[in-house]
Amino acid sequence: MNPFCVAKNPLPFFSRLFVLLAFISIFAVQSHAESGYDAWLRYELIDDATVKSDYDQSLPAVIVTLDNSEVVQSARNELIRGVRGMLDRTLRMETNLPDENAILLGTLDEIKQKLPDFRAPTDLKKDGFCLRTVSKGGHKILVITAPNDRGVLYGTFRLLLDLSLYKPMADLDEKENPYAPVRVINLWDNLSGAIERGYAGDSIFWKDGHIVKDLTRASDYARLLASLGIDGCSINNVNADARAIDNEHIPELARVAAAFRPWGVRLFVSINFGSPKKIGGLDTFDPLDPRVIAFWTNKVDEIYAAIPDFGGFIMKADSEGELGPSAYGRTHADAANVVARPLQAHGGIVFYRGFVYNSHADWHNLKLDRAKAAYDNFHHLDGQFDDNVIVQIKNGPIDFQVREPASPLFGGLEKTAMAIELQITQEYLGQQRHLCFEVPMWKETLDFDLHAKRGGSQVKALVAGKIFGQPTGGYAGVANVGLDTNWLGHPLAMANLYGFGRLAWDPNLSSEQIADEWTKLTFGHDPQVVETITDMQLNSWRAYENYTGPLGVGGLTDIIEVHYGPGIESCERNGWGQWIRADTNGIGMDRTVATGTGYTAQYHPPVSDRYESLKTCPDKLLLFFHHVSYNYVLHSGKTVVQHVYDAHYQGVQEVQHFVEQWKSLQGKVDEQRYNETLARLEYQVGHATEWRDAVCQWFYKMSGIRDKFNRVGNDPNRIEAESMRLNGYQVFDVTPWETASGGKAIHIVSADGHGSAGFTWTNKPGWYDIAVQYYDQTNGVSQYKLLVAGQTVDQWLADDMLPSRNVPSLPNGHTSTRHTAHGVVLRTGDQIKIEAAADGGEKAPVDYVEIEPASD
Amino acid sequence: MNPFCVAKNPLPFFSRLFVLLAFISIFAVQSHAESGYDAWLRYELIDDATVKSDYDQSLPAVIVTLDNSEVVQSARNELIRGVRGMLDRTLRMETNLPDENAILLGTLDEIKQKLPDFRAPTDLKKDGFCLRTVSKGGHKILVITAPNDRGVLYGTFRLLLDLSLYKPMADLDEKENPYAPVRVINLWDNLSGAIERGYAGDSIFWKDGHIVKDLTRASDYARLLASLGIDGCSINNVNADARAIDNEHIPELARVAAAFRPWGVRLFVSINFGSPKKIGGLDTFDPLDPRVIAFWTNKVDEIYAAIPDFGGFIMKADSEGELGPSAYGRTHADAANVVARPLQAHGGIVFYRGFVYNSHADWHNLKLDRAKAAYDNFHHLDGQFDDNVIVQIKNGPIDFQVREPASPLFGGLEKTAMAIELQITQEYLGQQRHLCFEVPMWKETLDFDLHAKRGGSQVKALVAGKIFGQPTGGYAGVANVGLDTNWLGHPLAMANLYGFGRLAWDPNLSSEQIADEWTKLTFGHDPQVVETITDMQLNSWRAYENYTGPLGVGGLTDIIEVHYGPGIESCERNGWGQWIRADTNGIGMDRTVATGTGYTAQYHPPVSDRYESLKTCPDKLLLFFHHVSYNYVLHSGKTVVQHVYDAHYQGVQEVQHFVEQWKSLQGKVDEQRYNETLARLEYQVGHATEWRDAVCQWFYKMSGIRDKFNRVGNDPNRIEAESMRLNGYQVFDVTPWETASGGKAIHIVSADGHGSAGFTWTNKPGWYDIAVQYYDQTNGVSQYKLLVAGQTVDQWLADDMLPSRNVPSLPNGHTSTRHTAHGVVLRTGDQIKIEAAADGGEKAPVDYVEIEPASD
Repeated sequence: MNPFCVAKNPLPFFSRLFVLLAFISIFAVQSHAESGYDAWLRYELIDDATVKSDYDQSLPAVIVTLDNSEVVQSARNELIRGVRGMLDRTLRMETNLPDENAILLGTLDEIKQKLPDFRAPTDLKKDGFCLRTVSKGGHKILVITAPNDRGVLYGTFRLLLDLSLYKPMADLDEKENPYAPVRVINLWDNLSGAIERGYAGDSIFWKDGHIVKDLTRASDYARLLASLGIDGCSINNVNADARAIDNEHIPELARVAAAFRPWGVRLFVSINFGSPKKIGGLDTFDPLDPRVIAFWTNKVDEIYAAIPDFGGFIMKADSEGELGPSAYGRTHADAANVVARPLQAHGGIVFYRGFVYNSHADWHNLKLDRAKAAYDNFHHLDGQFDDNVIVQIKNGPIDFQVREPASPLFGGLEKTAMAIELQITQEYLGQQRHLCFEVPMWKETLDFDLHAKRGGSQVKALVAGKIFGQPTGGYAGVANVGLDTNWLGHPLAMANLYGFGRLAWDPNLSSEQIADEWTKLTFGHDPQVVETITDMQLNSWRAYENYTGPLGVGGLTDIIEVHYGPGIESCERNGWGQWIRADTNGIGMDRTVATGTGYTAQYHPPVSDRYESLKTCPDKLLLFFHHVSYNYVLHSGKTVVQHVYDAHYQGVQEVQHFVEQWKSLQGKVDEQRYNETLARLEYQVGHATEWRDAVCQWFYKMSGIRDKFNRVGNDPNRIEAESMRLNGYQVFDVTPWETASGGKAIHIVSADGHGSAGFTWTNKPGWYDIAVQYYDQTNGVSQYKLLVAGQTVDQWLADDMLPSRNVPSLPNGHTSTRHTAHGVVLRTGDQIKIEAAADGGEKAPVDYVEIEPASD
Repeated sequence: MNPFCVAKNPLPFFSRLFVLLAFISIFAVQSHAESGYDAWLRYELIDDATVKSDYDQSLPAVIVTLDNSEVVQSARNELIRGVRGMLDRTLRMETNLPDENAILLGTLDEIKQKLPDFRAPTDLKKDGFCLRTVSKGGHKILVITAPNDRGVLYGTFRLLLDLSLYKPMADLDEKENPYAPVRVINLWDNLSGAIERGYAGDSIFWKDGHIVKDLTRASDYARLLASLGIDGCSINNVNADARAIDNEHIPELARVAAAFRPWGVRLFVSINFGSPKKIGGLDTFDPLDPRVIAFWTNKVDEIYAAIPDFGGFIMKADSEGELGPSAYGRTHADAANVVARPLQAHGGIVFYRGFVYNSHADWHNLKLDRAKAAYDNFHHLDGQFDDNVIVQIKNGPIDFQVREPASPLFGGLEKTAMAIELQITQEYLGQQRHLCFEVPMWKETLDFDLHAKRGGSQVKALVAGKIFGQPTGGYAGVANVGLDTNWLGHPLAMANLYGFGRLAWDPNLSSEQIADEWTKLTFGHDPQVVETITDMQLNSWRAYENYTGPLGVGGLTDIIEVHYGPGIESCERNGWGQWIRADTNGIGMDRTVATGTGYTAQYHPPVSDRYESLKTCPDKLLLFFHHVSYNYVLHSGKTVVQHVYDAHYQGVQEVQHFVEQWKSLQGKVDEQRYNETLARLEYQVGHATEWRDAVCQWFYKMSGIRDKFNRVGNDPNRIEAESMRLNGYQVFDVTPWETASGGKAIHIVSADGHGSAGFTWTNKPGWYDIAVQYYDQTNGVSQYKLLVAGQTVDQWLADDMLPSRNVPSLPNGHTSTRHTAHGVVLRTGDQIKIEAAADGGEKAPVDYVEIEPASD
């Protein structure tokens, strides 16, 4: 390739973009900042002299590619880039075998022509690969081969993974097939650029109704996906804007597909089932209407004319207000098949979402149960879907709660292809402000045996079609990465995207192995760093569950809007069906056949029996399946309410421990990621405390049962704002009440927007940490000062955007946050005072001050 | 202080600036990035658990200030800030002694009132201080006291230094006086904002003819100075713009003085001796004219009305084109005294620069000698200067060259106050692109005994007035910090500012101790980091001397303009008098009395005798004092020319070793400073090589004497650009010839601005590093690609600004630079090619390619 354009001096001969890309992609790997942009593909210079010297000697200097496809070129360039980063060596590209050791990349057919003696594994499937060192003419040839070019790319990424993990290279012999044929990512990006349930900035694809001009991030994202063996990605919200596939947007989609193509990633698009009417000029979207059939046929042909390797569609119909086949009395199968048929001709697929339920349910009806909806909607249609329809089913029957049983629908479809939908973006799991490594949670579902067939039928096998022999199926992850430099906001959150990809490729990997790999790739091999971060990740989901929703009761949050902080009864008494059925006597959804909604019958025995019986139902899911009194004694021996108290106090302690663990890594982790992570963890402690107190206060008030350790409602180190001497401040009732300590807080009402709240320290002298729990809303930047005996000891701005940008917010469980002044000396009789200034709609609210002996 | 302004909501109650400052200064120390901005005052959290626990226990929690001055407030706030950073504790401010341990800050008088039993040291001088722990009422009181408030501030900084260095706190008892009364900094900032001999961005004070609005950096700079005990700073170029003190600018100067004042730093200003005419409306500046006397009297009174603690003036007269007393047949004493007298009334000082010489000297005159100028100009005036005039004398007789003898003028003034002028900004020492720690060089001069008086008269004592009893005198450092975040550009260069300050306070400190302190403060206590950086610093001046100017011959650079890269004969045959008197027979300035300029007579015996005699003159200064043949045998046993060859090859090796040393710190130094430093060191290797080759080529050509190790002119790994196959490129002669390998290079002449230069690799196969030596000018951004066997192995932009921004440049010793592609595999017969595109006036010039086996 001649990079010169024929132009007059001084026109640059590589464009600025080209230069930038090339510098980033190959020649400047070592000087990247630790921003998180490179995620697990950092290719850090190996600083273990033994390993480096071993690789320097064992790795050939030449890379030979037998295939000219874009995908194999990516493989070659990636290997050059990776080796350059890790070993500071530039591999030499050749197209013929040289008279020396070499790495040889090619499909099986190509390798056989070049190395007739090469005994290829006979059982390689599409996208599977083989890495093997063979001898030829006295030289060692490291062969990376696969049935298709994408497999060659995946094999190359495997070699780079091996190098990154310091695996020995001598006499390499590896072979792998993907566990499931389907491994795709969904993004819920709106055409405006905003992302539904995205917590890391706006879309990398869309802005103001169009695909962005610069697709560098799209391409870099596809590279990350390819490194995990993910071969498809949808780029718009499942609550789909019909315009995404109109004639104006197809050329734009083609640009994205071109950015994906070198990485073997096929473009998918979410479609609106009402498209024939919305963009097709028809007066109907009845799937059996010939005009509708013609619309979909033409639309699909148009798309494939622009994007020959287009992957297909994602479709959400008849759910949460989306149009669907019910409008014409048609079935989901009718709906899916009408778009599947034209796709079939091109090798395309429809993912038809199983997340269908009535969001206007009557909460008075004790037999109604949203958990039953997916099974009820799809089970009876088994066998009516075309072969290229995949029903995409969330891991649990509700909606990505912190603890749910596996969806019974996985065991209820035998003739229909399925994909399990796992959510990487932490919608109900702390929205990447909290640390929550989801792999152990996913593993519980994937490894769960639904007993759909004798001899075992784990979810991971069911969705891969291994039990009932469906022709396709697999894994769909909802990622919702954004423009934040590190893709997902929290510096440790990309472990979830990595984990999803690794499990989609091989669900038999352990959580421990995945966490270990990710940490080494992301933070290097220092044993203390690896051990500490791995430990934090592996404990984080349990900690999150402990301080939020106990015993499978579900999300005790606002389920209608923001899905973030505590709001215990938000789910009750509305049409969305996530009821917890709590009153002063007891709590829990009775889903038994005997006395409840009958949901347990959707499972096969013995699973159904286990859940039906109070005796055998596991504690962790008790309140999902049964309604019990607060004094009901668990298998653990604790009562329900005491378990709630204990778990919540333990959960906060676990998060406090994360902070200590993280601080032990100071100086061992680069400063940028160290500081970003520490800030998030310290925030998490404050918000976990808010969760704990809201849940415990509520259970205490509702049950009237005291914590036997006397913690709940009794915070000896806490000074309620409403008990302070107020000046310019006034007490107000927080809604819901449990999201303020004691139900009340203070806010500024003075005309000049200034206020102060003070109290006297009557305890013993010493060094203390003073935590101020306040509310940080989106609609203002209040200013706070903390004074002790007249001296300012800290000041800060309430400049966060809680729960998320562009959402107006109030003082409640979503906005409660904490600022801690560390190491302040207090003397008995000291006046402690908060001075603050309100801003906009944010009235500098304060909930309480908590004072504890200084941490070391 | 009530921070609230009476304003309507939502006006912020602290201004944005106030918030920012407060956050940076006290409450957010830990989250700073390692940008270098905090220099040696980082107050990093102590991660040695033993030390931290010791300090947690031994350091009182309360800080009591008995003094309300701005300076003592700074001391108190600084101590709070430092303890907060290092121990995560906020000290409590009191104004009375509490019933517990405390730190007590106050002047001696104040302390005596509060602690009548306190036995103050009787010999404390102005700015000296005492730190002592005493007992009172069963409590320990850590007293920080001094005769004046500035001394209290310095004592506080000492306590913080002790803490930063992990010194034990128990039973503290320290007392120190400054070695000299004068410790000031000069900056050479022009009113435009450009800085003469500044290498780290534009002025932090001036922009477009005025003082900048935001003086945050001015204040932060004063804080750095105060931490070293520096109490004065001039803020404009000694080549002074008369307008600096006109009526428009005095209020602006007052703002700077206000920013300095809390740190005990007094403002000084450089003045133009022609001011009475230039801004005073007079037709004369004759220092004896009554109108001129009146002008200066009024001007000084005006300044003091605005700035009561104004420090005084710096004056450069009759030198390098500046106006001076010679215009009226007056003496330097007349000139100095006319401004000194009005200052005297206010306690102000005049620094009168001794750097006076004729810059239109006749180079044919073998008796003429610029080195003699300072002595000749000032010696005979000894006794005629007022007491508040300080003659400011550069360390050596020429101008900050890499090796000069001590200026004889230090031994030639007995009744005149003196200051030694040391240059922190590395004008002739690599301009902060090269690592050069100047402390060992300064120490040589400071410790040099001029034998001006029996019993020893080291320069450090002479300038402090300790030998002849002048009432004042001391140290002036030319710092030239700029807007670069890290103040001096090179991340390791602030060691020079630190070192100057430490020596100005106590010239008996060793280079080793200073380097050790600075490294610990700047990079932390990791022993490997401390040992490595200290070692690099201590060896850097010698290395720089080795690869640049040998045997005291002087700067072999362009002395008229940029003072940077090699240009061996630039100094010869012009009026500036930095001649090296080289011809084909020999080299060196004969400065003996016997046969030369007679300069040696300016020294007292035995110094004069030692330099006069070839036998006793030290090798390192041989060519400064003597003209010898290239074959002259040194005390070392080597000939002059062989010494030149050996030293230059050794110097480059030393720099290569710096790179290796630095690389051993990867992961132990934060990434930002690691990468910035590595980039500068790798650049330095290339430019040191250019220096070596230029000097060695020139000596070889001039002397005709071969290197006995056959290195010079024989680079087996080098492929000259002029020998390559050229396309679009053409060979041209570089000026001066020695700044290109072989005297020639290539540049692009094609119409489209593109060119290529290729050659065949005929050596054995293996992994290689390929270095391309090219010229990176200011007037274009050329683009380069390096290809091996058709494969791009590297590409880069020539986007540096060599030798410095805003100076048009050409291919020569200043712009020669190097880009190295590491770890490239070569096979015999490979085509290696540079493809390039010219830009603007920069024709993508290339000197040569050098190929060496790959480094590990």
